[in-house]
Amino acid sequence: MGVASTDVLIRGGRIARIAPDQTAPEGVHVEDGWDALLLPGLVEAHTHLDKTLWGMRWVPNSAGPRLIDKIDNERQNRQALGIDPARQSARQLVQSLAKGSTHIRTHVDVDTVVGLAGIEGLLATRECYRDAMDVEIVAFPQSGLLVRPGTLELMAEAMKLGSDVVGGLDPCGIDRDPKGHLDAVFELAQRFGKPVDIHLHEAALLGAFSMELIFERTRALGMQGQVTISHAFCLGDPDTAMVDGLLEEIAALDIAIMSTGSASRPVPPVAKLTARGIRICAGNDGIRDSWGPYGNGDMLERAMLLGLRNNFRTDPEVELALAVCTTGGADTLRLKDYGVAEGCQADLLLVDGETLAEAVVNRPERRLVVKRGRIVARAGRALVDAP
Amino acid sequence: MGVASTDVLIRGGRIARIAPDQTAPEGVHVEDGWDALLLPGLVEAHTHLDKTLWGMRWVPNSAGPRLIDKIDNERQNRQALGIDPARQSARQLVQSLAKGSTHIRTHVDVDTVVGLAGIEGLLATRECYRDAMDVEIVAFPQSGLLVRPGTLELMAEAMKLGSDVVGGLDPCGIDRDPKGHLDAVFELAQRFGKPVDIHLHEAALLGAFSMELIFERTRALGMQGQVTISHAFCLGDPDTAMVDGLLEEIAALDIAIMSTGSASRPVPPVAKLTARGIRICAGNDGIRDSWGPYGNGDMLERAMLLGLRNNFRTDPEVELALAVCTTGGADTLRLKDYGVAEGCQADLLLVDGETLAEAVVNRPERRLVVKRGRIVARAGRALVDAP
Ligand SMILES: [Zn+2]
Ligand SMILES: [Zn+2]
Repeated sequence: MGVASTDVLIRGGRIARIAPDQTAPEGVHVEDGWDALLLPGLVEAHTHLDKTLWGMRWVPNSAGPRLIDKIDNERQNRQALGIDPARQSARQLVQSLAKGSTHIRTHVDVDTVVGLAGIEGLLATRECYRDAMDVEIVAFPQSGLLVRPGTLELMAEAMKLGSDVVGGLDPCGIDRDPKGHLDAVFELAQRFGKPVDIHLHEAALLGAFSMELIFERTRALGMQGQVTISHAFCLGDPDTAMVDGLLEEIAALDIAIMSTGSASRPVPPVAKLTARGIRICAGNDGIRDSWGPYGNGDMLERAMLLGLRNNFRTDPEVELALAVCTTGGADTLRLKDYGVAEGCQADLLLVDGETLAEAVVNRPERRLVVKRGRIVARAGRALVDAP
Repeated sequence: MGVASTDVLIRGGRIARIAPDQTAPEGVHVEDGWDALLLPGLVEAHTHLDKTLWGMRWVPNSAGPRLIDKIDNERQNRQALGIDPARQSARQLVQSLAKGSTHIRTHVDVDTVVGLAGIEGLLATRECYRDAMDVEIVAFPQSGLLVRPGTLELMAEAMKLGSDVVGGLDPCGIDRDPKGHLDAVFELAQRFGKPVDIHLHEAALLGAFSMELIFERTRALGMQGQVTISHAFCLGDPDTAMVDGLLEEIAALDIAIMSTGSASRPVPPVAKLTARGIRICAGNDGIRDSWGPYGNGDMLERAMLLGLRNNFRTDPEVELALAVCTTGGADTLRLKDYGVAEGCQADLLLVDGETLAEAVVNRPERRLVVKRGRIVARAGRALVDAP
């Protein structure tokens, strides 16, 4: 990839032909490729579109140090800050698009304060930008599923409204009832015939315990290939005997892992998971929200951060970090017809670089972003409007 | 800082007056500040200007996984790759300047293959760009001081030629003779009356042992306040009892610590060191060299990476990460008249942001960079030429 120069013919939103020196058929618009690298669209496989502060005035972070502080702070301040889920998700979506993402899986808060407003906002944004971005919605019980009565019913409503995935969160740490939490998550998944994506920040043995409960349910319900575990910090534990045992189960159950390459927490070792054939994807997680001020929606920068965290230095290693942000995301979201090949959906970007690794470390302006054959961003700027 | 709007009068390369609504004296050139944030020049306190590949064709990384693989690979391939220290140091210097650095401490290889060519190249670059950047040169025995006979004599020559600091490296790991290595480093420092800056990658107990040997020599020779330990990964060890003991000595001996905020190694905890009054600075270390492909010379991005690694989220925390890259560097390099205050040298930059934290997470184009009162970069572009 990125070695030979070629022409790409796009028709009906798909890649019709990849071959050098093509003559443009009559009526086909021709774009120069500037000898840039052609990549498949970047896949933002884990973010929180509903609660970003992107495009708003700067809000100094005020949450306490614990996970629960951030959850409580956010639930309590969302309204005061005026975070409208429809408006804010549209703003981040457009920013992500300008950076070359063509697919987003977003976790959307469902709780007894925000109710279904987040889900409704995302459904509106998804509809509004349907030609520019594919958006997958995870109904996400950020404040706990059982600990705040009424949430489970709201989660079922969120699924009925059109959510694609059932979310979950730290079965021990937040609900304080790992069996109850996971039984409820998997029951929803079974009831609505949808996959599962669970935030698991729990580290070390606690995380391993929660993972084992996830394995048991995945196997018992025949949900192999339909479960994602996000963060999975326990897989970054120095106890490699424990980690290897977990990885064996993860591979056997075809569970996908999402990593942001967090610099301050233990993280799943990308090369090791890949060598075992485990699907691994990446996401920017929260972008400039009440959890923290970082992020700009750039999945090339995320590939760089993954590379730095995993101590990747050679070109093949850095390309692996990028692959996590492209094909790894596509494999996790089970995207059909993804890639740079004839017949695939024309979700593409052009970016400068002598090699893919150079593009990752440079993170240059995206020359062109194409969604289903339509140019949606050019020279770093989105061609669709944000509110 | 960054709250009230003000005018800054610069005369003779210094800040003459900071006050709102000044009338420009006759003959004084006026620049608009665009209501941007005014920062003191960024301090790149640890890099390797002599061996960057910046501005050359992409070189896929080919070094093995161990530290010694990288050292051997570099020494052997430097010539084949055509890395000219004068040209390459100039290129990185100009890039750093465009990103707002006004001071650089660079470690420069001295070994039996490159000899003094690196030092000579740096001396030429320093002279050439003397009005645009302050450069401090560390004579650095990258391939070991004792293990390759002849290096110690070359180090003495490097000091005679005009190096400012005596470098050292992993006393156990590379020279395999911690006493011999450190005795030699400190003897050079004493002989030439110069400070010391030692690369210490050694982790855990091995690093703690080497540190203790550094403490002993610092105390015995009365070199309090004249020693920097770079990387100091052992200070990121989970054994906090060990770390606290080391920090006590570091504070007592006024030793400075340099951290890149490495995402893949244990790192010194910035907040903890700061709370103990320990000087801590930051650097980009090698930028796109044979050690690894990352980096662009941006110390605002380095502040972001430090913040991510240290899990900094609030504005004061992110401002601390930035302070490491400004005043922390100035304190380590013992810069005179550094800062945004009347009488200080006019080394300044203007950058957009509602707060300093926003500037760090956004890393926007530098609107203006000023070195001793002279504009050296504008709108992200250096006004001095690179070779
Ligand atoms: Zn998340
Ligand atoms: Zn270094």
